[in-house]
Amino acid sequence: MELKPILKKQGKKILLIVLDGLGDLPFPETGKTPLEAASTPNLDRLVKNSATGVHIPVDYGITPGSGPGHLGIFGYSPIKHQIGRGILEALGVGLEVKNTDLVVRGNFATAKYEGETPIILDRRAGRIPTEENKRLIAKLSEAIKEIDGVQIILKSGMEHRFAAIFRFPEPLSPSAEKINDTDPQATGVPPLEPRGETVEAERAAQVVKKFLQKAAEVLKSEEKANYILLRGFSVKPELTPFSEKYGLKPGCVAVYPMYKGLARLVGMEILEVKGSSIEDELLALKNSWEDFDFFFFHIKKTDSYGEDGAFENKVRIIETFDTLLPEFLSLSGCIICITGDHSTPCVMKSHSWHPVPTLIYSPYVLGGLSDRFTERECLKGELGIFPAVKLMPLLLAHAERLKKFGA
Amino acid sequence: MELKPILKKQGKKILLIVLDGLGDLPFPETGKTPLEAASTPNLDRLVKNSATGVHIPVDYGITPGSGPGHLGIFGYSPIKHQIGRGILEALGVGLEVKNTDLVVRGNFATAKYEGETPIILDRRAGRIPTEENKRLIAKLSEAIKEIDGVQIILKSGMEHRFAAIFRFPEPLSPSAEKINDTDPQATGVPPLEPRGETVEAERAAQVVKKFLQKAAEVLKSEEKANYILLRGFSVKPELTPFSEKYGLKPGCVAVYPMYKGLARLVGMEILEVKGSSIEDELLALKNSWEDFDFFFFHIKKTDSYGEDGAFENKVRIIETFDTLLPEFLSLSGCIICITGDHSTPCVMKSHSWHPVPTLIYSPYVLGGLSDRFTERECLKGELGIFPAVKLMPLLLAHAERLKKFGA
Repeated sequence: MELKPILKKQGKKILLIVLDGLGDLPFPETGKTPLEAASTPNLDRLVKNSATGVHIPVDYGITPGSGPGHLGIFGYSPIKHQIGRGILEALGVGLEVKNTDLVVRGNFATAKYEGETPIILDRRAGRIPTEENKRLIAKLSEAIKEIDGVQIILKSGMEHRFAAIFRFPEPLSPSAEKINDTDPQATGVPPLEPRGETVEAERAAQVVKKFLQKAAEVLKSEEKANYILLRGFSVKPELTPFSEKYGLKPGCVAVYPMYKGLARLVGMEILEVKGSSIEDELLALKNSWEDFDFFFFHIKKTDSYGEDGAFENKVRIIETFDTLLPEFLSLSGCIICITGDHSTPCVMKSHSWHPVPTLIYSPYVLGGLSDRFTERECLKGELGIFPAVKLMPLLLAHAERLKKFGA
Repeated sequence: MELKPILKKQGKKILLIVLDGLGDLPFPETGKTPLEAASTPNLDRLVKNSATGVHIPVDYGITPGSGPGHLGIFGYSPIKHQIGRGILEALGVGLEVKNTDLVVRGNFATAKYEGETPIILDRRAGRIPTEENKRLIAKLSEAIKEIDGVQIILKSGMEHRFAAIFRFPEPLSPSAEKINDTDPQATGVPPLEPRGETVEAERAAQVVKKFLQKAAEVLKSEEKANYILLRGFSVKPELTPFSEKYGLKPGCVAVYPMYKGLARLVGMEILEVKGSSIEDELLALKNSWEDFDFFFFHIKKTDSYGEDGAFENKVRIIETFDTLLPEFLSLSGCIICITGDHSTPCVMKSHSWHPVPTLIYSPYVLGGLSDRFTERECLKGELGIFPAVKLMPLLLAHAERLKKFGA
């Protein structure tokens, strides 16, 4: 339901700690998940005075990407608000996206020419090194700065990948992204022409077309990466800013660009983290503690180790977090939620649909229902199995930020 | 889903016992909730043969007022059907509300006059005693009986509060309530003029305006309460009557006017209770047992003691109810549900969002899942955590009042 009419102006701070890809499955040799295998004396103590449960990130059986995973716990329906691939790619390389931008994911590719017609030979240009990619992006950026008043912004990703922003002079409507991919998803064929489904999209597609022609000229002399393919045209999704939706001043503590980008999409301010460890993030949190009343604190490595199938490393990062937990608990005047954005089971080496352990530490809980902060123990808790989008209303309630509904 | 197509004409009686504000949180000294601290041998026995669970009154994190709390367990979406403050106030003082009524909550206030303009000095007239309020309402009622064919009905509440009904000759549409509050929510300023957002509301606002002028004349000589302010204009919400929605003949056993009023809103008949104890209510229930096939039995004190933070008293009222439980169980041919409309934790001294323990006693349960009828034990039950609006379908099913859905 709509919370705006019942928001209070004041309340406690909310600290939302997201261990990316936290949820897991038993490791075959031991029958234990990383959370079960880890030694976590501080979490064990905390969980007894916390409300526990597991959240379903998107829907039963649905494996979320990072975008939907985070939108859900931020309280935005990930089904209603879909973030385009182009946007995610741009956020991932650290580009800021505006409502005037048409954003797309690019691949360097290899083409040969039959007369005037390019024929795609390799859709990834032999996965050129990232350094080579950077040289090419610099060359393209130098040569193509704008087209018909539209600013062109390019930034390298890993290997053959990059992000491109077409920054228009005026805001774009949601349908401006309705342009087909130029990647033909096959070799030995020409790339596809970009075409727009609406008048606005077609106008944008004409700019894209000119850009592709110019880029092909600039890259003509390159041996491998002499062509580019574009996929996932997207405009910035319309999301009610966090501050307006919840009456909170939100800050984000994260190291990886994509998560900072996702936080910025919902209007969070990004705190500067010097370094990349959890300790570095904690320091940034402490330094800005007085400046915000909501903190999204992102820990990436649980997901990375899950993706690698590195069971022992995932255990270790959980133990590191547990060691630091007293420092989080010493922060004053807040309620704390510890959860993940989705599960990344080591045995699957990928994101999964499994519900994610969740703990809310506040004075207003039953508590005493979970003996540890694990997948199996959280299932016994007072929050039950609940949709991720319901997390924010619960946190606002615990932070005493919601008025009574109706008389 | 819509139950009407699958309603049976017959079945068992349903007895829905609502202990207002039943759910609670652990008391810090003992770690026990009132339900956990209470000695309840009869409930302990009953729960083993009952389906148990906890219901979410409105939504995750949402603290319901009495209106939404009851609408939910009666099976009406409290989000879709919002009951105006004026209606609740009128029901609370025991006025009956019709579909021809514009209902509003009034405050006696103190004003001084700058020329013709009243300036509000005290929005509550120094919280005049209820007796003084009654004298003033009698004076106003005597002086202002109708305006332009609209009947004026006034009734005192506590201290400076009262309810006013503008009873029109014909039914009002839902938009007729779109009139601003006249309470300026500040002192040292004039009251606001009532204005309607629609043609119908503006016509009503003109009547309200004349009423306010007449009232100001009548009260002119009063020392403190020489003005009135109006808030929360509302018309009767459109609710499908209980009998039509469920094919049941419903009766209400309650002592407090607001709950009788809420029951009347959904078309329940109000049983006469001589006295105000649970025993008195039980006697009324027994006397009318043959006349209805659904009973809403309301026990108020659990909520009152929760609001007072009176932990021991809340324990005692639960124990009193437990002592009387065998008498409820001796009633024949019924299934019984015991629950609350919301939680009122003693440590919070207010309503809260926490799910509410629920028990359904019927032959068709798994049972054996909860050792006691408490918040924590009910979480282990076969009903799980479920939305309050799903309670009525469950009760109809247990009462063998629903046909198979589909072939």
